[in-house]
Amino acid sequence: MTTLADKFSTEPLPRSQTLAPVLLTAQDVRLAARAQTFTSPTSGLAPGYLQANLIILPSRYASDFRLLCARNPVPCPLIAESASTGCFNAVKSYIPGSPVASNLDIRCDAPRYMVYRDSQLVKAGCLDIIDEWSDDHVAFLIGCSFGFESALAAAGLPPRHTVMGKNVPMYRTNVPMCPAGVFSGSTYVVSMRPYKACDIEKVRRITRGYNATHGEPIAWGWDAVAKLGIGSIDQVQWGDAPVTLDGRPLGEMSGSEEELPVFWGCGVTPQEAVMRANLEGIVMGHAPGYMLVIDSQDDDIVKATYT
Amino acid sequence: MTTLADKFSTEPLPRSQTLAPVLLTAQDVRLAARAQTFTSPTSGLAPGYLQANLIILPSRYASDFRLLCARNPVPCPLIAESASTGCFNAVKSYIPGSPVASNLDIRCDAPRYMVYRDSQLVKAGCLDIIDEWSDDHVAFLIGCSFGFESALAAAGLPPRHTVMGKNVPMYRTNVPMCPAGVFSGSTYVVSMRPYKACDIEKVRRITRGYNATHGEPIAWGWDAVAKLGIGSIDQVQWGDAPVTLDGRPLGEMSGSEEELPVFWGCGVTPQEAVMRANLEGIVMGHAPGYMLVIDSQDDDIVKATYT
Repeated sequence: MTTLADKFSTEPLPRSQTLAPVLLTAQDVRLAARAQTFTSPTSGLAPGYLQANLIILPSRYASDFRLLCARNPVPCPLIAESASTGCFNAVKSYIPGSPVASNLDIRCDAPRYMVYRDSQLVKAGCLDIIDEWSDDHVAFLIGCSFGFESALAAAGLPPRHTVMGKNVPMYRTNVPMCPAGVFSGSTYVVSMRPYKACDIEKVRRITRGYNATHGEPIAWGWDAVAKLGIGSIDQVQWGDAPVTLDGRPLGEMSGSEEELPVFWGCGVTPQEAVMRANLEGIVMGHAPGYMLVIDSQDDDIVKATYT
Repeated sequence: MTTLADKFSTEPLPRSQTLAPVLLTAQDVRLAARAQTFTSPTSGLAPGYLQANLIILPSRYASDFRLLCARNPVPCPLIAESASTGCFNAVKSYIPGSPVASNLDIRCDAPRYMVYRDSQLVKAGCLDIIDEWSDDHVAFLIGCSFGFESALAAAGLPPRHTVMGKNVPMYRTNVPMCPAGVFSGSTYVVSMRPYKACDIEKVRRITRGYNATHGEPIAWGWDAVAKLGIGSIDQVQWGDAPVTLDGRPLGEMSGSEEELPVFWGCGVTPQEAVMRANLEGIVMGHAPGYMLVIDSQDDDIVKATYT
């Protein structure tokens, strides 16, 4: 089975040749994407604003998907959804006190999209989904771990991939999702950032509050690699293979206390679950890396903690 | 390590010799437990009312435990907690529209309790915890799968253990909990009820709405036994070993479509997680099977679905 994310690991989308304009706010990014003057990945844009994974389903699957998120909140933190079936310009927010986005058009505010028909990819990287959107569609916004990376950097613990100018390493695991209706048989996807053994409690503490963007790690240490069912730390399923600060494969550090893999729930998980469910009809999402940037700030989700 | 539940699998509590009085409502059960005229297991009492697992922690662990429940809602559905630190006679309800319990004394309304000091069991099966309760304690109420068993029976699909007059079979799995602060390194505990292959979608549908009492199954079928890391279906960790309708070990049906194991998240999970966390100070809980019966009805939690 070819999933959305596999497609991208083998066939990268064409990047816009245009230099990115100065896009400082979430609305700047959305308006530029809507005007199709910005068609590139969103990493690093509009610092401090949250970026969201986008999953758009026929309404008959909406309640099962909502339940999937409720039962698996760590890999699938639901941030918002269409205000009503068919609504593309307003969302119900699940972040207390944060409206998520005003001046929104879900059909064209992400820089690029993917379109599936009966679980087969039919368009990759298109600039809008105006023709495909119907009054029976419901859009879901899922948190993305960009939300805690700036907090780690501010604490002197920048994620390795950001230091090296690479994409975060991501892996399939054997950790089962709790099924929900049509969504069953899928497993967690995790992202990985290496840290020293002595820094792990601090890393856990910093990311703990970011419950809408996966929160604290789900596992850490070299023994976690086998426990999660990951074959080799150097063989990623998505993103770039992890490296030491001097550029060697991270696997060379295996067993050391100086560099340990630390794993978080990952926003690719719900995309995998949707693609594995063999849904009928038109399903859409953002193109991986080409996220929907929203008006909520990193801080908004820390305020909405469970403490 | 001896956990709370292990203790009970080897040393059953003394059962009261008194015949159970007629206890039709949740408040009947609570008042009889408070008066110490009822000191027996609560299974089958006050039909239609929810029964809750009880976990009582020093306040410094409360926010981590709340987060543990939020990150693992299927095995740890948080129903309510003390209205404030030290409060034993009122709770904040997390079931929308249901006050959970009025006329409540958490220190004596369950028929029997367990007390741990610095993670060592110091009292098993005591009738109240009035001496141990302090103004620094917070009580948490966790859903119990009794909540959906009557719905299964009403649909002509009574759980096997209820038909045979036994306790539900329970197993440790290798499915990791998402850690939260001091609570890390624990795994899901599951309960099991066998059903025919042709009934499983119906069983999933009936239990789906009961999200505050573990909801729909997390896995089913003979291949799920190995996938969950369960050694043998006939070797339970808690409860009674599962049997066919004519009393043979369920394992003899292995591979058949006529009797498949179906696994649900189980309320023993949070107790295990608490006992594995090596907490300091006094930790308390109900004695397994001697639940806190609450005023919320089975139907209250179905109304609070995610659809």
